[in-house]
Amino acid sequence: MRAELVMVGTELLLGEIVDTNATFLAGHLADLGVDVFFKSTVGDNLDRVSGVLADALRRSDVVIMSGGLGPTDDDLTREVVSKVTGRPLQEHKAVLAELQQWFAERHGQSSMPEHNRKQALFPEGSRVIPNPVGTAPGFWLETDGKLVIALPGVSYELKAMFNATVASLLLAKGSGQVLVTKNLQFAGIGESSLEEMLTDLLSEQTNPTLALYASAGTVRLRMAVKAESQRAGLELMAPVEAEIRSRTKDYLYGTDTQSLEEVVAEILLEKQLTLAIAESCTGGLVGHRLTNVPGSSGFLDRGYIVYSNRAKVDELGVQQATLDRFGAVSSETAKEMAEGARLKAKSDLGLAITGIAGPGGGTETKPVGLVYISLASPGDTIVQRHNWKGTREQIKNRAALMALRLLWLTNR
Amino acid sequence: MRAELVMVGTELLLGEIVDTNATFLAGHLADLGVDVFFKSTVGDNLDRVSGVLADALRRSDVVIMSGGLGPTDDDLTREVVSKVTGRPLQEHKAVLAELQQWFAERHGQSSMPEHNRKQALFPEGSRVIPNPVGTAPGFWLETDGKLVIALPGVSYELKAMFNATVASLLLAKGSGQVLVTKNLQFAGIGESSLEEMLTDLLSEQTNPTLALYASAGTVRLRMAVKAESQRAGLELMAPVEAEIRSRTKDYLYGTDTQSLEEVVAEILLEKQLTLAIAESCTGGLVGHRLTNVPGSSGFLDRGYIVYSNRAKVDELGVQQATLDRFGAVSSETAKEMAEGARLKAKSDLGLAITGIAGPGGGTETKPVGLVYISLASPGDTIVQRHNWKGTREQIKNRAALMALRLLWLTNR
Repeated sequence: MRAELVMVGTELLLGEIVDTNATFLAGHLADLGVDVFFKSTVGDNLDRVSGVLADALRRSDVVIMSGGLGPTDDDLTREVVSKVTGRPLQEHKAVLAELQQWFAERHGQSSMPEHNRKQALFPEGSRVIPNPVGTAPGFWLETDGKLVIALPGVSYELKAMFNATVASLLLAKGSGQVLVTKNLQFAGIGESSLEEMLTDLLSEQTNPTLALYASAGTVRLRMAVKAESQRAGLELMAPVEAEIRSRTKDYLYGTDTQSLEEVVAEILLEKQLTLAIAESCTGGLVGHRLTNVPGSSGFLDRGYIVYSNRAKVDELGVQQATLDRFGAVSSETAKEMAEGARLKAKSDLGLAITGIAGPGGGTETKPVGLVYISLASPGDTIVQRHNWKGTREQIKNRAALMALRLLWLTNR
Repeated sequence: MRAELVMVGTELLLGEIVDTNATFLAGHLADLGVDVFFKSTVGDNLDRVSGVLADALRRSDVVIMSGGLGPTDDDLTREVVSKVTGRPLQEHKAVLAELQQWFAERHGQSSMPEHNRKQALFPEGSRVIPNPVGTAPGFWLETDGKLVIALPGVSYELKAMFNATVASLLLAKGSGQVLVTKNLQFAGIGESSLEEMLTDLLSEQTNPTLALYASAGTVRLRMAVKAESQRAGLELMAPVEAEIRSRTKDYLYGTDTQSLEEVVAEILLEKQLTLAIAESCTGGLVGHRLTNVPGSSGFLDRGYIVYSNRAKVDELGVQQATLDRFGAVSSETAKEMAEGARLKAKSDLGLAITGIAGPGGGTETKPVGLVYISLASPGDTIVQRHNWKGTREQIKNRAALMALRLLWLTNR
């Protein structure tokens, strides 16, 4: 099945936005065994979008459009599909009712803006693709043996709709052979070090193929196998995965889209351990990441964002003498923060991060990127020293990641 | 001048790479006053790339190609341009000599790999675009009044070559007019409500043109004007901006790439106000966002992530009776949290967020998405009630954004 992407939106041609929708769609289509041969991006102009769609329908079996489904006059996708396929727009009563209800619930308005009425129009013969997270539904349409799929441009809407509806639609129309993929997630090791550990596997494996992708401090290893069924694919993968696991166990924390915080949450909930956190340079990021996991209230009791020295003393009982002698960014302060958080919250574990995120505040002996992470447990307290390079946000992210990794490594 | 981008490379269609070259080129072309009408991405296949280039030359004045200039068999751009324009490939002696010298210097090899010889071939009539940072030179060619520009896919090479050669080439061929842009940033208002407020301006304005873009709770209004100079452009924009500002002052918080937290930080630092935060459902996200701003230690004293009821009582002095009677997610608890944080930290301001982020934990009377935000100031304490729909992360993001907006609105 030959697919083609048509990304609609003048803003995509102005260089102000990186088009992550195209990346998402291409990656997920590859996983479904659908080859993407072309991707076109075109501005909000009826004739130009129509031209691109007509070209796409001539050369491909499936055309997935993104964008142009909003309520404004610039949003032209429904008109374009109507024009190119010769199918008039029709109002969809159920979608209209849902839109009206959505506005009533969200804004307490008895009527929705007149603009939005347009979002209930679809080319004749279309099937609606529900939007679980926004107002703009999408649609799909079969025309002369080709498939047109229209999704909104808002990323989280497009992703939710692709996963809920489009993926299974494409599988149902597809070839029979499936591409089975599995991702292994690593933290605490760089891409090139991991590559050295697995060099023979990476170069010799053909089915599954293996590939490494680094992003924001973690590395993902993607295994992809073509097989007659999901099950046959998983069987081909199993021995390769076992070999990888045996070599990388201090780094391989999870699979597929699992985040490190999800794995940590699972462990703490299972072991019924409670946690208090004390954050200086990460400023709440560790708390934010842990509380992204539903059910995190089951283990996270509280956290302290102790940005000032006074806060470290007041809230956590860090000794003024420790701050004076060793400074706020030191092994000693990190330890007292972790132990203080644990003691004050009466939790099983206390996790602390103190460091210099920059860009200012660094010195010869304590440069930007110096970070101490400490974990206080019933038996003992661990302190790790790190020294990273990077921007303020990179250092915060790296510190939060390594703090979560310490929780994982110590309690798994 | 109507331009079009052709991005060549199978890897760009696999979803494993985000195409930052296209973003770079589009942004820089806009700044040169060159309109980009289409962008196509196509794999390393002679027929498909040729088809795309032929289409592009038919509808545009300038075609900029990226990728396919390397030494391998997959690198087809020179062959494609040769085929489509009917100009045979010719070896360029000076480029060949430079390549040989580059290999000798870099690798101490007396001869370069035979593969790389190909990189000295160009379609007849081409001019070489020097590559100051790599081996693959690019080229440009005028053909039937159209301009074809071929650049490598390696990002830092493409950028260096664009800046050194292509920008001035395009300026010389262009109209002389420049595009001046400015962005206005809004928080606390949806895209469609803002559109209604500005409907006449959005539809009537032609120079500058105005366009709205929504993302993650904020809306950006982009003004773009074509003018003889940067200064003339800004003068054309000024009265339109003034009119927009007069209509939207409770929502327009900043310009261009300013984030809400940057604006808040600026205000608090300027007014020398200190802040303590108390986060329940946002779990540290407000602290994380504020501490992304360099210098935030100048106003942020500390924060409390009070996830459990016990933590709210222990850390902030919330009354057990308040929790029993009104619950943790209530106007009363939010107020006591904000006032407690302010009192305990001895800060000027106390900001609190309590709510139900979901997906679990909602009830009939307190559904998922119910969030209270409170701000305690020296004079009084404000409480806002919100009710949003969305995923856990969306509700956390929305709550953090509206808490930051309350800080901005109350202290600007």
